[in-house]
Amino acid sequence: MKKNTSKIKIIPLGGMNEIGKNLTAIEYKDEIILIDCGLSFPEEEMLGIDIVIPDISYLLKHKDKVKGIFLTHGHEDHIGALPYFLKKINVPVYGTRLTLGLVEFKLKEHRLNNVKLQVVKPGQMIKKSNFEVEFIRVNHSIADACAIAVHTEIGTLFHTGDFKIDHTPIDGDLMDFGRIAEIGSQGVLLMMADSTNVERPGATMSERTVGATLDEIFSGAKSRIIVATFASNVHRLQQVINSADKYHRKIVVSGRSMVNVVGVASELGYLNVPEGVMIDINEMGNYNDSELVLITTGSQGEPMSALSRMAASEHKKLDVQPGDLVIISANPIPGNEKLVSRVINQLFERGAEVIYEALADIHVSGHACQEELKLMHRLVRPKFFMPVHGEYRHLKQHGELAEELGMPRENILISSNGVILEVDGNGAKFTGSVPSGNILIDGLGVGDVGNIVLRDRRHLSEDGLMVVVVTISKESGEVVAGPDIISRGFVYVRESEDLMHNARLIVKKALENCSGRQMKEWSYMKNSIKDDLKNFLYQKTKRNPMILPIIMEV
Amino acid sequence: MKKNTSKIKIIPLGGMNEIGKNLTAIEYKDEIILIDCGLSFPEEEMLGIDIVIPDISYLLKHKDKVKGIFLTHGHEDHIGALPYFLKKINVPVYGTRLTLGLVEFKLKEHRLNNVKLQVVKPGQMIKKSNFEVEFIRVNHSIADACAIAVHTEIGTLFHTGDFKIDHTPIDGDLMDFGRIAEIGSQGVLLMMADSTNVERPGATMSERTVGATLDEIFSGAKSRIIVATFASNVHRLQQVINSADKYHRKIVVSGRSMVNVVGVASELGYLNVPEGVMIDINEMGNYNDSELVLITTGSQGEPMSALSRMAASEHKKLDVQPGDLVIISANPIPGNEKLVSRVINQLFERGAEVIYEALADIHVSGHACQEELKLMHRLVRPKFFMPVHGEYRHLKQHGELAEELGMPRENILISSNGVILEVDGNGAKFTGSVPSGNILIDGLGVGDVGNIVLRDRRHLSEDGLMVVVVTISKESGEVVAGPDIISRGFVYVRESEDLMHNARLIVKKALENCSGRQMKEWSYMKNSIKDDLKNFLYQKTKRNPMILPIIMEV
Repeated sequence: MKKNTSKIKIIPLGGMNEIGKNLTAIEYKDEIILIDCGLSFPEEEMLGIDIVIPDISYLLKHKDKVKGIFLTHGHEDHIGALPYFLKKINVPVYGTRLTLGLVEFKLKEHRLNNVKLQVVKPGQMIKKSNFEVEFIRVNHSIADACAIAVHTEIGTLFHTGDFKIDHTPIDGDLMDFGRIAEIGSQGVLLMMADSTNVERPGATMSERTVGATLDEIFSGAKSRIIVATFASNVHRLQQVINSADKYHRKIVVSGRSMVNVVGVASELGYLNVPEGVMIDINEMGNYNDSELVLITTGSQGEPMSALSRMAASEHKKLDVQPGDLVIISANPIPGNEKLVSRVINQLFERGAEVIYEALADIHVSGHACQEELKLMHRLVRPKFFMPVHGEYRHLKQHGELAEELGMPRENILISSNGVILEVDGNGAKFTGSVPSGNILIDGLGVGDVGNIVLRDRRHLSEDGLMVVVVTISKESGEVVAGPDIISRGFVYVRESEDLMHNARLIVKKALENCSGRQMKEWSYMKNSIKDDLKNFLYQKTKRNPMILPIIMEV
Repeated sequence: MKKNTSKIKIIPLGGMNEIGKNLTAIEYKDEIILIDCGLSFPEEEMLGIDIVIPDISYLLKHKDKVKGIFLTHGHEDHIGALPYFLKKINVPVYGTRLTLGLVEFKLKEHRLNNVKLQVVKPGQMIKKSNFEVEFIRVNHSIADACAIAVHTEIGTLFHTGDFKIDHTPIDGDLMDFGRIAEIGSQGVLLMMADSTNVERPGATMSERTVGATLDEIFSGAKSRIIVATFASNVHRLQQVINSADKYHRKIVVSGRSMVNVVGVASELGYLNVPEGVMIDINEMGNYNDSELVLITTGSQGEPMSALSRMAASEHKKLDVQPGDLVIISANPIPGNEKLVSRVINQLFERGAEVIYEALADIHVSGHACQEELKLMHRLVRPKFFMPVHGEYRHLKQHGELAEELGMPRENILISSNGVILEVDGNGAKFTGSVPSGNILIDGLGVGDVGNIVLRDRRHLSEDGLMVVVVTISKESGEVVAGPDIISRGFVYVRESEDLMHNARLIVKKALENCSGRQMKEWSYMKNSIKDDLKNFLYQKTKRNPMILPIIMEV
């Protein structure tokens, strides 16, 4: 008799104890489907790393079981790892039209042409042998976002995706409360729900409130307006376009990802751009400042973004002029506060007026606050609950919120990446774990930068390095050239000639102290140079540069 | 006839367009006095740097003119550069008792024993030949903070220092509204005022409100309480002590700077610790958890602080236990958000309950909000106004606030570090500039790390390095040993043997391509190795490690 075949395994490979790289495997009767496949951005200590993707070695090991990927929406932390994933495991990808439009663009950039992308409509059900996967519309800071219900013969799993409740959404597409309630009434075994804003009481404001603020700002503005926001926030873009049209301004779009999204979203009908409102960057000269709006990337102060380059006068075609009105329609993502602040200062220095979160209501979150989360719990009424999409503190507090609503504590399951949760009608428990973690991407390298390389980068970044080279005669064991010392990132050499001179003397002495026999034991000699030089430099400077002794033999 | 002798020069050498390293020189008739002498903490891109102090080369050049330093209060960004300054220019230092207590401690650590520290009482006037310097009590997040009025024969300058208005301060020491109004009525030529919170409407809450929250938390707590806050916030410490005493808990102090400040402040009478309430860390075992409060550093998530080490189980004597109630009584300073968040997650993971800014009112700012700033302007009624203590956006908006209050725009002077403002009864104008900027301190080195070293550190931190060594015969010009290649922080070598092998081939080829004549031109050879290797590595990895070719001659 096979054991456990009648239980569902839920294995998050990303998105737990972090906001990023969401990827959840759902396994039942030797078949696996995945919800989302996202990336995260590097932590500060991941020096030189471009992006981070989930460790999928468990899925690679069970490659044949993997049947498909179901996407809740088109944000990078939900779709960004797809190109890397699909190169290894090429399975069909399901999502709504805008989501797949963004995926398609991404796959093209990676020259992946042989992927099956299947567009799903909200409300639609996809039959995948042992699973029936249903997409249910929710609201979020990107259009076409869905919750996903996974129906199996032993019960239904409900994954909220990223969501908020917006009773007056820009596109009129309301969250499907009716169907969610219905699924809840039919019985949900386990719910996974977005925990991002669990610390915030009340409810998130409607996206429409931002439109009112924009209108107010536009109506009074006499100069050029520059709006920076998230490229993927199609509804926000729509509202900027509406205000521009209302106040007779032409729109210029700037920044690579902004141009991409506007392109994809317009083509698919998610952006409604009135005829003639959008103009080319090169046509700007034909209009007065008061007739122009620039929509741009850079709301997070990213140094290479269009807004940052404009603020630093490093943009080829665009400049910030005195009098420009810059609206930063976004809040800094934790970790970006300083970058955003720097751009704001630069904009002010160029004479622009800047409107940002501290000064006006020009942004709303895309995630549910406490009252919205409570409603979701009340509608879905799951037997078990696993908070997702949050740092540990968010998962923990989301668990407490569920408990406050009356859920028994033992039915609330705080998981971690790689931990297997097995669930059926009788119970839910953690039964083990699979490999999980961060795969770092640096340039073309996927996973070739690990802890040792990062430790070296950290070391080099703090105190630089000192290379000591010496050439030794194979026959006599005598030093025939060097020691030469080269340093980088340690100290300004021209002002530290004495120090460098004395460092060379220390190395010479260390070499002299190695007897003829020991001279041939390179590791002994290298360690001796390293230790003596390290002690000397620390004593003189209280710094610890990386020391690289190199011995050549002739 | 001497020119300009009857004007006052105001030269900020720090604190403009930044929150940090406050230092303002005031020069009149060949005499200079200084207000504050602070440090700032390194920006993210200042890799490996410990602290930053102002460039004082202008003062070194006019060393004989410098007569004294007047301190507004004892925060690091106002006193932290003193040890470095006083080693170069030893002049008397004036400040209130707590301020100088903290300075004394700092100077001892730097083994500076020959500095004249003169304690001043709020309300007192110091005559310094051409200047009369008056200390006026204000409220701030440290006790004993003062504004400073500098009276000269041609007019009075008023510097608010860092301030807020607290009508119910913990120590009962009210801001001296009466004297400030009186000085205002007598006529103030120029005011310099704190701009930190100019973006915040309304008024900063009284420190006492935090006490009420603390009492509420303490009254309901059954477990051990851990409070993390700024060591220098003596009033906050007093309130924690009061709550501890009220609810019959013993206090343990942890963290080097916390122990220091509690020591200095208790000794000088700024902390009132009831007999027997404070116990030694080693006595903790004698008490139940519900009888203990731990006061600790680490409210900013600093990795080496006591709280961070406890949260990571790296503290020798203290550990976080399940059930502990941790209160983080501070807001993250911009740039520290991620660090704080990490500690909060770790504390939750250890089973502690954590109360922080998002969840309760357990912190108030030490800086004046808009309504308080307006009152200061109305009381002082200066002819000219120079906003200080802020990033550019704060200075700019503080200027706008003054304009809203009716000050003519031309009387509002937005300055920068190093810019000379000359002022007298007839007018105020910028007349030139002196050297200013950041002096970086790394270990024992003051100023020996500059842009080149930082650029190298940045380069090394992003992609690591590759050292290429080759030994060449002096006679034949032939390669006699190598090329050897060593890399660090670039790629995990064991998994990249092919890459390293091919890199060596590229170098060999580059060497072969150098003809006999060129072989002797080392720089040609080095560049050739560098270029070919760089192109090869970028093509294969899209990374740019630092390449260091080293040629030895035998």
